[in-house]
Amino acid sequence: MMGTIQVLDNGYVAAIEHWGSDERIIEAARMSTNKGFVDWNSDAKLLRFLYTNKHMTPFEMAGAVIEVKAPIFVFREWHRHRTQSYNEMSARYIPLPDENYVPTVARLRVSGGANKQAQGVADLAITCEAARDWIARLEALYTCCQAVYEDGLKLGVPKELARLSVPVARYSRMRASANLRNWMQFLALRMAPNAQWEIRQYANAVASLLEQTFPRTMALFREGQGNGS
Amino acid sequence: MMGTIQVLDNGYVAAIEHWGSDERIIEAARMSTNKGFVDWNSDAKLLRFLYTNKHMTPFEMAGAVIEVKAPIFVFREWHRHRTQSYNEMSARYIPLPDENYVPTVARLRVSGGANKQAQGVADLAITCEAARDWIARLEALYTCCQAVYEDGLKLGVPKELARLSVPVARYSRMRASANLRNWMQFLALRMAPNAQWEIRQYANAVASLLEQTFPRTMALFREGQGNGS
Amino acid sequence: MMGTIQVLDNGYVAAIEHWGSDERIIEAARMSTNKGFVDWNSDAKLLRFLYTNKHMTPFEMAGAVIEVKAPIFVFREWHRHRTQSYNEMSARYIPLPDENYVPTVARLRVSGGANKQAQGVADLAITCEAARDWIARLEALYTCCQAVYEDGLKLGVPKELARLSVPVARYSRMRASANLRNWMQFLALRMAPNAQWEIRQYANAVASLLEQTFPRTMALFREGQGNGS
Amino acid sequence: MMGTIQVLDNGYVAAIEHWGSDERIIEAARMSTNKGFVDWNSDAKLLRFLYTNKHMTPFEMAGAVIEVKAPIFVFREWHRHRTQSYNEMSARYIPLPDENYVPTVARLRVSGGANKQAQGVADLAITCEAARDWIARLEALYTCCQAVYEDGLKLGVPKELARLSVPVARYSRMRASANLRNWMQFLALRMAPNAQWEIRQYANAVASLLEQTFPRTMALFREGQGNGS
Repeated sequence: MMGTIQVLDNGYVAAIEHWGSDERIIEAARMSTNKGFVDWNSDAKLLRFLYTNKHMTPFEMAGAVIEVKAPIFVFREWHRHRTQSYNEMSARYIPLPDENYVPTVARLRVSGGANKQAQGVADLAITCEAARDWIARLEALYTCCQAVYEDGLKLGVPKELARLSVPVARYSRMRASANLRNWMQFLALRMAPNAQWEIRQYANAVASLLEQTFPRTMALFREGQGNGS
Repeated sequence: MMGTIQVLDNGYVAAIEHWGSDERIIEAARMSTNKGFVDWNSDAKLLRFLYTNKHMTPFEMAGAVIEVKAPIFVFREWHRHRTQSYNEMSARYIPLPDENYVPTVARLRVSGGANKQAQGVADLAITCEAARDWIARLEALYTCCQAVYEDGLKLGVPKELARLSVPVARYSRMRASANLRNWMQFLALRMAPNAQWEIRQYANAVASLLEQTFPRTMALFREGQGNGS
Repeated sequence: MMGTIQVLDNGYVAAIEHWGSDERIIEAARMSTNKGFVDWNSDAKLLRFLYTNKHMTPFEMAGAVIEVKAPIFVFREWHRHRTQSYNEMSARYIPLPDENYVPTVARLRVSGGANKQAQGVADLAITCEAARDWIARLEALYTCCQAVYEDGLKLGVPKELARLSVPVARYSRMRASANLRNWMQFLALRMAPNAQWEIRQYANAVASLLEQTFPRTMALFREGQGNGS
Repeated sequence: MMGTIQVLDNGYVAAIEHWGSDERIIEAARMSTNKGFVDWNSDAKLLRFLYTNKHMTPFEMAGAVIEVKAPIFVFREWHRHRTQSYNEMSARYIPLPDENYVPTVARLRVSGGANKQAQGVADLAITCEAARDWIARLEALYTCCQAVYEDGLKLGVPKELARLSVPVARYSRMRASANLRNWMQFLALRMAPNAQWEIRQYANAVASLLEQTFPRTMALFREGQGNGS
């Protein structure tokens, strides 16, 4: 697993390391019958059987470590996945770099699936011009936030309090590790159409990285998503 | 377990429900030897033995559900505890109320333990006057953030994007559920002197609620903290 | 939640305690939109929405503690559920009572779904007479096992080694605690037709206990099982 | 990580795969301050700081998959560790090979720490001659168990029921995967003097395998165990 995929305006997902393989998953499943991996002619069927019948423990015998740079509001959703391990940059120890997520005009005009679900009606789409104006105001606000943040740090406000001025659009960075079963669970929820568009971009990038290393398992995952299963 | 404890300027911790008791913990421990709870004259010794020898599974047979209102930066630390269950207010579905954490001048002048640890030297404390000024700027910034947020919502920016303007000082609300073993693990980390002062106030409040219902277990916990064990 | 349900020849499942309710689940889900429970006329729809769309975290805000007496081979399957808390009788500390599971002739003649799946062909069913004979031999073997066990204990063999003579049919006892989401996950796997018949009887009994306390959630669960979803 | 270590009379622990390294742990810890791994002259101190101050999340960024052959009563203790992933041979699908653990005379005469703890007094040690006799009886019993098991299988008793005659001394096989933090937690409990001698041998073997790949972390672990911390 290798490579870095740019996500949003300032973020990325980067492969750090993986363990296991499609073959290892078969080997683990075969513990129950005392046989190992044979070849894909005979074992592709078993991998499909495991996946479609939700015998998921063999998929815990592989996994990946990924580095992510994303806005705080994306991390807030991500960290709800309690089966991953996380190490994140800490604003208690170092000043957060001055990078914030700025959505595009086009993005602003697409209402999230979430709002429809909650309200029964879609938000009214904003006009292009109003979107452009609001984005300009947002960027000006980010500048103000940073001024208050930096001045606080200079004056001797403890870092852990100076950060109060930081918006949830601020980028942070972390490493996340999970086994393949739990990565697929993450992807199933975060690639779904009702997930927020921003975290969907991250989930899509993670899926691309995992496909390099676990092509057969990820093909089954894609198939399952297509079927809505 | 009952009651609500005010925390910080706008937050609280409220008891929702608990299960189990000090007695139930003894009962569970006695599964191994096929006896139940007798009385505290004879069983206080067993409870102490379990706790001090880290036989912690019996403490998983009790627990509590708690409601918390806290700033986002506190929730960010809280949610790293992956053994709790969470349901939180979502800015994707409803506009977050306009409430933000404003630290006091006194708080601003106390450097966090965290910074010392990372830097080898304490941050220089800010003067009272500078602190007062910076807090005023912070409050003005909160007002700007809210204006951008509200105008975005009015213009039709999807809620999930309008929130980009919200600072990490913004209050949110959640319910958290955990068993007693995991609550104590949370408290051990978050009541520690090197935890950020703000989350320490929440941890102290949670400890007070748990003491009502699990007085003997929590006494052992307090004792252990005193010993640094 | 109350009562004890007999399972197999010597086992049972007993209600110890529960927390939460169908109403609490709604309350927890409503954290996201800042409303509480209204009434079932309006909220039955939300409960169904949560369940059928797999928004499962609110179901973590309720749960139950159950006491179980079952053969060791059943506990071996049960303990693979890593989201439950367990306290079990320990053969290191007390001699296990002399109780073992003896299947009926009828049970012996029903091949498990498991074997079919693994072999492509069903085991040939045993005749009634052969089944009766084999059961008699099994019971005689249990007697031998117990004699070796008891003599070992009398001679001073440490309990933890004397137990080597105990068969996996031997009954043990434990308390198990889990939240409702995880109980339903357990039930989905262990009430399924391909689960071993013995653990299915335990799962059915657990479902009956949970139905007393969480009737609406369990009705949705039953419905989902019927649909194979 | 490579190699196979024999454990007990018929068991082993074998290295399958690992991920991460002592260096990766430093890299992960440095996410908080935005620096990477430098060299061990400067970073050995950080690794020690993390370990001794229980900042354990960086140790979740490394791990290992191990194959184990052990008696069922050892697996029963092992599987209580709910943070590991398991795939085990299943007696529902294949007949368990006829291999059982036979303790030595010397082992039989060493009372486990467990019994002392529970009873206040040690079990009286068995004489050499009585131990020899009891072991002979145990081996004869294993032969009887196997006869009932095999005859059951021949007669058409479903595998999942024929196994009722199998003792908890019977060997089984599995793969286990965990991150390094959780392996160390396992080792801390199972290498302790009050753990049963048999599982201690397995834990010692796992520690040897992990030392090959994570020498610096495991040195800190050994040091901590020596201090009783």
